[in-house]
Amino acid sequence: MLHSLLEKINKNIPFEKASAHCDVPCGIYDPAVAQISALTVIRMTDLINELADKADKTIADEARLVRLVNEKEDHAVRVKEEIRIIWGDYFKEPQFEKVPNAHELVHSIMMKASVCKQGVDRQVAVELLELVNKFAEGFWATKGVETFTATCPYPPAEKVVYPKLNG
Amino acid sequence: MLHSLLEKINKNIPFEKASAHCDVPCGIYDPAVAQISALTVIRMTDLINELADKADKTIADEARLVRLVNEKEDHAVRVKEEIRIIWGDYFKEPQFEKVPNAHELVHSIMMKASVCKQGVDRQVAVELLELVNKFAEGFWATKGVETFTATCPYPPAEKVVYPKLNG
Amino acid sequence: MLHSLLEKINKNIPFEKASAHCDVPCGIYDPAVAQISALTVIRMTDLINELADKADKTIADEARLVRLVNEKEDHAVRVKEEIRIIWGDYFKEPQFEKVPNAHELVHSIMMKASVCKQGVDRQVAVELLELVNKFAEGFWATKGVETFTATCPYPPAEKVVYPKLNG
Amino acid sequence: MLHSLLEKINKNIPFEKASAHCDVPCGIYDPAVAQISALTVIRMTDLINELADKADKTIADEARLVRLVNEKEDHAVRVKEEIRIIWGDYFKEPQFEKVPNAHELVHSIMMKASVCKQGVDRQVAVELLELVNKFAEGFWATKGVETFTATCPYPPAEKVVYPKLNG
Amino acid sequence: MLHSLLEKINKNIPFEKASAHCDVPCGIYDPAVAQISALTVIRMTDLINELADKADKTIADEARLVRLVNEKEDHAVRVKEEIRIIWGDYFKEPQFEKVPNAHELVHSIMMKASVCKQGVDRQVAVELLELVNKFAEGFWATKGVETFTATCPYPPAEKVVYPKLNG
Amino acid sequence: MLHSLLEKINKNIPFEKASAHCDVPCGIYDPAVAQISALTVIRMTDLINELADKADKTIADEARLVRLVNEKEDHAVRVKEEIRIIWGDYFKEPQFEKVPNAHELVHSIMMKASVCKQGVDRQVAVELLELVNKFAEGFWATKGVETFTATCPYPPAEKVVYPKLNG
Repeated sequence: MLHSLLEKINKNIPFEKASAHCDVPCGIYDPAVAQISALTVIRMTDLINELADKADKTIADEARLVRLVNEKEDHAVRVKEEIRIIWGDYFKEPQFEKVPNAHELVHSIMMKASVCKQGVDRQVAVELLELVNKFAEGFWATKGVETFTATCPYPPAEKVVYPKLNG
Repeated sequence: MLHSLLEKINKNIPFEKASAHCDVPCGIYDPAVAQISALTVIRMTDLINELADKADKTIADEARLVRLVNEKEDHAVRVKEEIRIIWGDYFKEPQFEKVPNAHELVHSIMMKASVCKQGVDRQVAVELLELVNKFAEGFWATKGVETFTATCPYPPAEKVVYPKLNG
Repeated sequence: MLHSLLEKINKNIPFEKASAHCDVPCGIYDPAVAQISALTVIRMTDLINELADKADKTIADEARLVRLVNEKEDHAVRVKEEIRIIWGDYFKEPQFEKVPNAHELVHSIMMKASVCKQGVDRQVAVELLELVNKFAEGFWATKGVETFTATCPYPPAEKVVYPKLNG
Repeated sequence: MLHSLLEKINKNIPFEKASAHCDVPCGIYDPAVAQISALTVIRMTDLINELADKADKTIADEARLVRLVNEKEDHAVRVKEEIRIIWGDYFKEPQFEKVPNAHELVHSIMMKASVCKQGVDRQVAVELLELVNKFAEGFWATKGVETFTATCPYPPAEKVVYPKLNG
Repeated sequence: MLHSLLEKINKNIPFEKASAHCDVPCGIYDPAVAQISALTVIRMTDLINELADKADKTIADEARLVRLVNEKEDHAVRVKEEIRIIWGDYFKEPQFEKVPNAHELVHSIMMKASVCKQGVDRQVAVELLELVNKFAEGFWATKGVETFTATCPYPPAEKVVYPKLNG
Repeated sequence: MLHSLLEKINKNIPFEKASAHCDVPCGIYDPAVAQISALTVIRMTDLINELADKADKTIADEARLVRLVNEKEDHAVRVKEEIRIIWGDYFKEPQFEKVPNAHELVHSIMMKASVCKQGVDRQVAVELLELVNKFAEGFWATKGVETFTATCPYPPAEKVVYPKLNG
């Protein structure tokens, strides 16, 4: 069934036409990378908070904190970058019709990722993932691809929006 | 059904124990990034070959070639990096038991990605994706997650191995 | 006179309060870097087009083309990055009141920079600079700093928006 | 008046000739980026010292310290890079005639930036900015552009050397 | 004597043939960079442990810790990268014949570098250098170049495997 | 003999004192990385010139040219970076006494590397290596380590200055 859906998609998205107006002409856009980075922000926040609960931190614990913070930072930036690229390169008139609040959604992702960078509040990190999931949902809608939500198969085991594909 | 599968996974992969022996402790490993990069290598190879067929190349065409080659190069390197990280950080005794030929598979990905970097042969790029898919299959096996194969919902519309997840 | 203006600014922007809600807390935002990069995109486009007019290109000319295209590419990306950072980190309610069309302006910069990356049309590169200038004007308005327009003192000698400061 | 000055500059700097002997041929050199980075080093040093005064540091404070140190580090390196590029690519015989102590000045910037990287002494960071300002002054002299000093319109609100330009 | 050895090498490694099957065709492979990075990992580990012994850490000490950890991290990653490149680009059938355990050796370097990233145990860092030295020995064997072991002429003054060359 | 020389060095360079005044305190400085990069610049220049001699360039040849130019560019920049770091971080009064012309030598390396970036003249690339060798000689002199010259054991098989060490 999915196979025939994909055939329809192939017919409905004339790739040649697409290639005329994208950035690296017809670069591949996929929100999965941003989603994995948002998951990593949650994971690192969790591990930082575990350290917070430790009574006497050794120098190895302190070194570990540096690495966890860096990892959280890098992935929060990657979320921003990946979303900026899809929004800034791929979103044009037809996409904005499908996702009318794209500007506000993208800006709220930027703001939320900044709050994640500044602090260690798990709830904020989860909210970042939820915003990125909303963006992914909109993105797949512009492609005519249905989505579903599932728990990602590794820690932090949070809900992620995936495209519906079948073998 | 998947939900209950995931609950089983959650029980079977004791995360705390895992966190004791991974690199950025409990970094998130997901072969999706490598797979997207392998798809991009194919896509760029296609676009380069389209240019090859053009009779009189303008300076804009030549500039475009530079960008396509750079994009192909960057993503071939990213394939190598992502696979190196999963193999070098996450693969230990239990994983090698599940994927006994991991060393050879990883080395063949390195070699194939090098050939992709050097040339513009579409078939070689497809072979790179197939090797990365094989690695993804092995990776998900180590996690106890089933996989399926589907055509990716954007160009180059090639077969990709995905983890089987349900909403 | 400017000195007294600056004293007023110092009074009107309570820095401590500001530090409570910015990204790297109180990172320094200045559109100058984006403007210099937009100028570089024009400059590289000019130099690429000079090469286009050359009859028999030597291997050194072709190597030079690669470098010019890379430089154009890098600076177009830097424009996107610098604008994304100011918009995504610094623009909040008070700033959007001063620059109500900020979302559209930022998105148009992303789109224009993409067109600059894809082609070698000088006019498009000049339009990118004009959009970045408009953003700079809005940015300085949010800071309560007046601006003026002057030709930049080096090639490509185009009009740039500067903050009005006096010794 | 400045406008006519700029017209004179345009006549006096034969751009085509210049393009014959610079690095990325006729790359754009502007000390503004180094100056903004030197200001950022001061700003980050200030914010680190604010943290030093805090009695009981939470894990969020410690995470913030990591980010502030990284930001200070990155911008101290960027100062070095930007100055190295202008000095190493653009400074040739005619420029050394205008700025005879350029070698010593550049080396002292490198040394001062290293001390900024190693410590958190505000005075040293201000001295780095002063050296970079001196370099900017010399740079604009080689371009035949006058300069003036003004307080930068954002924290850390320190004195910066700007080129004198008029609308 | 070495000179004549080198002449023999020049005869025995037909460079043109080599250029047909390497990555960046005939990139230069030299394990020295990985060895210097492994030495840096040891050095940074030593400096971190010196800090651990300090009773009351100032904010400057804490900032220094961040930098030392980052430096250790970067060089552990560089070890992985450099070894991955040589193994993944240059090692083919003839090289594996000379170094039959290359896969295991490379994987053990990846694992050991990960442990160095996670902790501050000097002994582990020394073991990383020893593994990299073993790899260097194997590499030079594939080139037909003899090696010798000497203490490196700077801290941490550990044993390093060098190629035997004469003036 | 070398072993005893090294023991003397260990006695003569009090590391603790050294750690008080270097950049990343007691970072490891070694000109080998700059020398390997200079060799790579020569090698890439050779391979580019081989391409120049080819009559009808295929699209694969043109793609190869892009990669070779990028590789040449990256390594010319790395030469500049590595030399800038050693000169800017490590060279202080005692080092300038041993290498009185260090400023001029470093600046000439910057200039020469720029010419290498701009063109494809093998002779210029060899001159870059010779300057870097001179710098290496001076560097080892500041460490009290003798040097010798040997042909590097891989293409481009040029003369390189090495520190004299024995097993």
